[in-house]
Amino acid sequence: MLSRLLQPEIRSLLDARDFSTLKEVLSEWSPTDVAELISEFAESEQALIFRILPRDLAADIFEYIDFDLQVSLLKGLGKEEVAAILNEMSPDDRTALLEDLPGSAARQMITLLSAEERKIAVTLLGYPEESVGRLMTPDYIAVKPEWSINEVLNHIRQYGKDSETLNIIYVVDEKGKLVDDVRIRDIILASPGTKVSDLMDENFVALHVTDDQEKAVGVFKKYDRVALPVIDKMGLLIGIVTVDDVFDVAEAEATEDIHKIGGVEALDEPYSTIPILNMVKKRAVWLTILFIGEVLTAIAMGYFENEINKAIVLSVFIPLIISSGGNSGSQAATLVIRAMAIGEITLKDWWLIMRREILSGFSLGCILGTIGFLQVTILANFIGTIGEHWVLVGLTVGFSLIGIVLWGTFSGSMLPFILKRLGADPATSSAPLVATMVDVTGLVIYFTMAIIILSGTLL
Amino acid sequence: MLSRLLQPEIRSLLDARDFSTLKEVLSEWSPTDVAELISEFAESEQALIFRILPRDLAADIFEYIDFDLQVSLLKGLGKEEVAAILNEMSPDDRTALLEDLPGSAARQMITLLSAEERKIAVTLLGYPEESVGRLMTPDYIAVKPEWSINEVLNHIRQYGKDSETLNIIYVVDEKGKLVDDVRIRDIILASPGTKVSDLMDENFVALHVTDDQEKAVGVFKKYDRVALPVIDKMGLLIGIVTVDDVFDVAEAEATEDIHKIGGVEALDEPYSTIPILNMVKKRAVWLTILFIGEVLTAIAMGYFENEINKAIVLSVFIPLIISSGGNSGSQAATLVIRAMAIGEITLKDWWLIMRREILSGFSLGCILGTIGFLQVTILANFIGTIGEHWVLVGLTVGFSLIGIVLWGTFSGSMLPFILKRLGADPATSSAPLVATMVDVTGLVIYFTMAIIILSGTLL
Repeated sequence: MLSRLLQPEIRSLLDARDFSTLKEVLSEWSPTDVAELISEFAESEQALIFRILPRDLAADIFEYIDFDLQVSLLKGLGKEEVAAILNEMSPDDRTALLEDLPGSAARQMITLLSAEERKIAVTLLGYPEESVGRLMTPDYIAVKPEWSINEVLNHIRQYGKDSETLNIIYVVDEKGKLVDDVRIRDIILASPGTKVSDLMDENFVALHVTDDQEKAVGVFKKYDRVALPVIDKMGLLIGIVTVDDVFDVAEAEATEDIHKIGGVEALDEPYSTIPILNMVKKRAVWLTILFIGEVLTAIAMGYFENEINKAIVLSVFIPLIISSGGNSGSQAATLVIRAMAIGEITLKDWWLIMRREILSGFSLGCILGTIGFLQVTILANFIGTIGEHWVLVGLTVGFSLIGIVLWGTFSGSMLPFILKRLGADPATSSAPLVATMVDVTGLVIYFTMAIIILSGTLL
Repeated sequence: MLSRLLQPEIRSLLDARDFSTLKEVLSEWSPTDVAELISEFAESEQALIFRILPRDLAADIFEYIDFDLQVSLLKGLGKEEVAAILNEMSPDDRTALLEDLPGSAARQMITLLSAEERKIAVTLLGYPEESVGRLMTPDYIAVKPEWSINEVLNHIRQYGKDSETLNIIYVVDEKGKLVDDVRIRDIILASPGTKVSDLMDENFVALHVTDDQEKAVGVFKKYDRVALPVIDKMGLLIGIVTVDDVFDVAEAEATEDIHKIGGVEALDEPYSTIPILNMVKKRAVWLTILFIGEVLTAIAMGYFENEINKAIVLSVFIPLIISSGGNSGSQAATLVIRAMAIGEITLKDWWLIMRREILSGFSLGCILGTIGFLQVTILANFIGTIGEHWVLVGLTVGFSLIGIVLWGTFSGSMLPFILKRLGADPATSSAPLVATMVDVTGLVIYFTMAIIILSGTLL
């Protein structure tokens, strides 16, 4: 808001080349607002604005701008300026930048780091992708159990400036093993002579460095923390993860699930900036798989060509029939996928869910079956496209819908369980995939029903 | 984990009626773990365990258990115990409980509150649903600009115990107007004689009490804060919102969007516990709307019955054709809906997105069209179901697919924009809705193409 409001003023300062006033003004803004402002200017000016900022502020701002703009700034700035920014950045935000850069560019950036920062960067990038290690920062405050509150406060005053958070202080033993966490509130509320050990309850929650980031989201949500310590397999404290990064992970995961449910491979890049060729590739994969799956419908239709030939009226209801199966399957799959993603249901609930979904599917089938029969009645009596055996056709459509909606609901709800059991992502059972699977069986159910009900009259 | 591990021990203490040891053990656990433990026991035992806990811990634990269990505990506990818990709960968690209770039960609970707490509860419930006011807690620390750090620390020691967070301290003027926020880190790092005004940069971000909760999610994400102040329309500080509650809102919103994309009305209750009748109702609404929409396909098919009669082979490809339109439409709608939800694109981007999607749709159409033509070739030459004019049929299928996939992609990407422009939720343009809309037009495109290409031969 601020940035858009004041953009004309900033522009006139920039045009007048009044860099000292510009520097003074921007230094008072929050890094987020400056980041937003910069993104509104032309590329050449972005580097210009960046260059006049104090270096620590520049690094802060750099953490808040989008990856694409980060890359263009890295290109526009001088080597020395880039080095200054990279060395000043929080290690976790730097990891996020480096892991998205092409390998050669990332290596080049790493050579610009100081020995100390390079060691940190390389260690963090050494953890597996999507692991907690990649979200971690080693900037935290650790104290010893035998310290007094006074010592703790002095330690914080000395080393707290670089810490990512001061909300929680970690307690480690002489070997560096995490033994507890203490909230800053308890330290402030304690009298200066109290020992850290008096505040300890030896009850703490920690993430393991190789844990999946998805697990971290669950732990943060469950314990309502703003930061969590990260330990290695020996129990040594090696870093912390803060809630803002976990928030971003949770959002990215929801996006991935939504894309999969919609039948797109996870884009892994923002929709608004992904190159169109990459996006077409990602979308073409699933569309082609689904298309080839749908060939089964052409084969099934070929198999029933004889029935269609005798009773063309049957073909009229094919789109209606198969889409109802697809829609009910999409509903069931979506509900189950999301409930699994947020931990509401697990694999062991399959039996409970199956019973519930069969009951739901049957009820929904009866509702649509009844409406279907009524529609045939209306079409027959007011539009007259169905012919003399409209009651039988109506019954065929109605009973088929019960079967198809029941089957769609059943398979839509069970497919995520099967995929999860096989170790795949349940969200892969996208709405379009379920719909495609149900299409073929829907046709078989419909024509079988037609042969049973119409044989002797239309067939 | 802890709770599951130690469940047998807790059970034996419970069976032995050794309440004092039980109380001692559970008092050392974190509230989250006790909450998890309690949910594993039978209903009668849950109330029993709850009753022996110290009251402040009981209130803490109560905030971490699910709504259903909260309700059953409220029924199982005595009036006095319920009153104690409700009075001890954080105001924001209490609002979440009260707003989900039936009106009469909520009113009854409110009468159990002390005069002071009742005033808070009624004020918070007075804000609109889904507004920031409903997430807010009035437990924060506010200081004056002229105070010294020493005074601030004394104030925190005196009043900090009940504050929801101590990570950020708010600065208000003599009228109670919010003038700045100061991070606790700056207060700890400052020397005791410093004045609050020396730490102020008068640069703060605040939420308005009537803001939509969705907006709060965006602000938290943008500024990476753990708590944000809430002001009324006069600018007076009236509460704070913490990141854990905003995290829950973000998750609930993603769930709602996913449900809508899957073609289900937002359940508003967990999938695992929603009564089956409520769920069937929520699902039946959309299924019925979609089904009635699909009647248009039956009418369209009736219109082309003559063509089908002449060339039964055309009917064979109907499911294939219309599902391809539906799938490509689902993809496009899903991508646009999510990009809108996370603020990547806004209404003004429609023109950019339209051009991109037309290009994507055309590319995807060409890919599927080519595969479609190849499939007809294979079916004709190896299975022999197509007949002598298979090249023309293949061209009909291929060109129809280009048109249908292009049209599906175009309408799927534009529908969310139209809905948003009309003030509706873009996520309503669910995958099934787009598929249904595209089905009718898909049939028209297909048969029109057939008439053009096959007239004189098959038609």
